[in-house]
Amino acid sequence: MNLILLFKEDFVNGTGRARLQGRRLEHVLRVHRARAGDDLKVGLCGGKIGRGRIILLSEQCLEMDVALEEPAPPILPVTLAVALPRPAMLKRVLSCASAMGVKKILLFHSSRVEKSFWRSPALSRGAIHEQLVLGLEQACDTALPDVRLFTLFKPFVEDELPTIARGTRAFVGHPEAREACPGDIKEPATLVIGPEGGFVPFEINLLVSQGFVPVNIGKRILRVETAVPAFLSKMFY
Amino acid sequence: MNLILLFKEDFVNGTGRARLQGRRLEHVLRVHRARAGDDLKVGLCGGKIGRGRIILLSEQCLEMDVALEEPAPPILPVTLAVALPRPAMLKRVLSCASAMGVKKILLFHSSRVEKSFWRSPALSRGAIHEQLVLGLEQACDTALPDVRLFTLFKPFVEDELPTIARGTRAFVGHPEAREACPGDIKEPATLVIGPEGGFVPFEINLLVSQGFVPVNIGKRILRVETAVPAFLSKMFY
Repeated sequence: MNLILLFKEDFVNGTGRARLQGRRLEHVLRVHRARAGDDLKVGLCGGKIGRGRIILLSEQCLEMDVALEEPAPPILPVTLAVALPRPAMLKRVLSCASAMGVKKILLFHSSRVEKSFWRSPALSRGAIHEQLVLGLEQACDTALPDVRLFTLFKPFVEDELPTIARGTRAFVGHPEAREACPGDIKEPATLVIGPEGGFVPFEINLLVSQGFVPVNIGKRILRVETAVPAFLSKMFY
Repeated sequence: MNLILLFKEDFVNGTGRARLQGRRLEHVLRVHRARAGDDLKVGLCGGKIGRGRIILLSEQCLEMDVALEEPAPPILPVTLAVALPRPAMLKRVLSCASAMGVKKILLFHSSRVEKSFWRSPALSRGAIHEQLVLGLEQACDTALPDVRLFTLFKPFVEDELPTIARGTRAFVGHPEAREACPGDIKEPATLVIGPEGGFVPFEINLLVSQGFVPVNIGKRILRVETAVPAFLSKMFY
C-alpha cells in the first residue's frame, strides 16, 4: 500500500478529516507502523493525491487531516479485453492491470474458458473492486478502472468490440501470429488476450474479421498473468 | 503444460521409450485427455524438443516413444537478480522468469526482505526446481535456469555482482530513477530488482558504485511479480 485510497464516505461530513478502520487501519498500524503526527500518502478515489496527517491513531480508529494537491498519474490509453481466467489468476490480472494504469477492462467468455469460472465469487462486484483498489494502492493511482463482463463470445466480438475498438489500434495477442507486438505505441489501443490454451481458430478468425491484428510477444507461450504485463509494458512503457 | 518435460531417468535404459507416472501422467489423463496413439509435445531437460507417441496409457502409467528433433527456443541474454520475495510471490517470479527464457536467476537479501523468507520451504531445492519446470512446460523450453542464493547484501553486491555483470549492461530497477528502462536491448544484460518497498538509499548507492544504472519502468510502483515481466518484456521482447 504505497498510497491509502480514500473514499467520500471516509470523510467526516463537509471537512478534510478522514476516519479509517478495518484493513487500512491495520496496514497503517502493522506495516507503516505510523504514529500521530506522521504524514501518509493518500489519494481520493477518482480525485487527487496528497498527504494525510495523522491526528489520532488507536487500535480502533485512525483520523487524519487530508490535503489533496497533485493529479493522479497518466492513464494507459488502452482497453484490455481478457478471456475470463480462473479465479486466482483473475485476481492477479485485475490488480496488475489496475496498477499498470489500465482504466477499461473487459472480461469475456471464450471456448477454452471453463463455464464454472463465471460462477466464482471472485467475479462479484465487491471482489473485483477489492483487486482494483489493491492495484491503485500499489501504484499510487486514484482512478478506478471500469470492468465489464461479457458471457457470450460471438455477440461480444461482433456487436460490442467494433464500437469499443473504433479509432484505436486493435490487437489480439496470439503466440502463432507472424507480426510482433509493436513497442512504444502513442495512440489509443484495444488489446485482446485469450484464455490459457489460446483461442480456437474460429475465434481468432472472428477477431481478425473485426479488424484485430494478431501479434506475438515472442515465440514463448506465456500464462495470461504474465502476458498481460508483458504486452502492456512492450506497448506503452 | 504446453510441453511435457522429460528427464534422463524417465527413459527405459538405452531406449527412446519414456515411462511417466505422477503429475505428468495425471495431466495427460485429465487435461490433455489423450489416448494411446496420440502424439504429445515433449522435450528433454537440457536437450531437444520433439514428439512422444503414446504406446500405453492407464491410470497407473504412461509409456511413449520419443523422437527429439528441434532445438530449444533462444534464451534471454540476461542475469536476473531479485531481492528475495515472500514465498507465494517467489514461486510466481521463478515460474515467470523460467517461462520468459531467463537462465540465470540470483536471489539476494536486502534490508526490506523479511529474514523469515529465507527459512521458507519455497526455497528448498525441490520447490525451486518445481517452479522452474512449470515455467519451462508453459513456454515449451527445456533449459533449466540456474538459481543461486545470496543471504548477505553487501558481499553479494561488492564481491559477486561485479564478476557476474562484467561485459553486460547493468541495470537496477528503481521507480525514482530519472532514466527510463531502454527497449530492444541486443547485448547481454544484468537486471537487479529490489524488494517490495524498494531498496534503501545505501543499497541503491552501493549498486550505483558498482556500475549499475538505475532505470524506471514508468512512474508507477509495481509489485515484484509485475515488475519482472514488465522489465524483461520492455528490454528483450
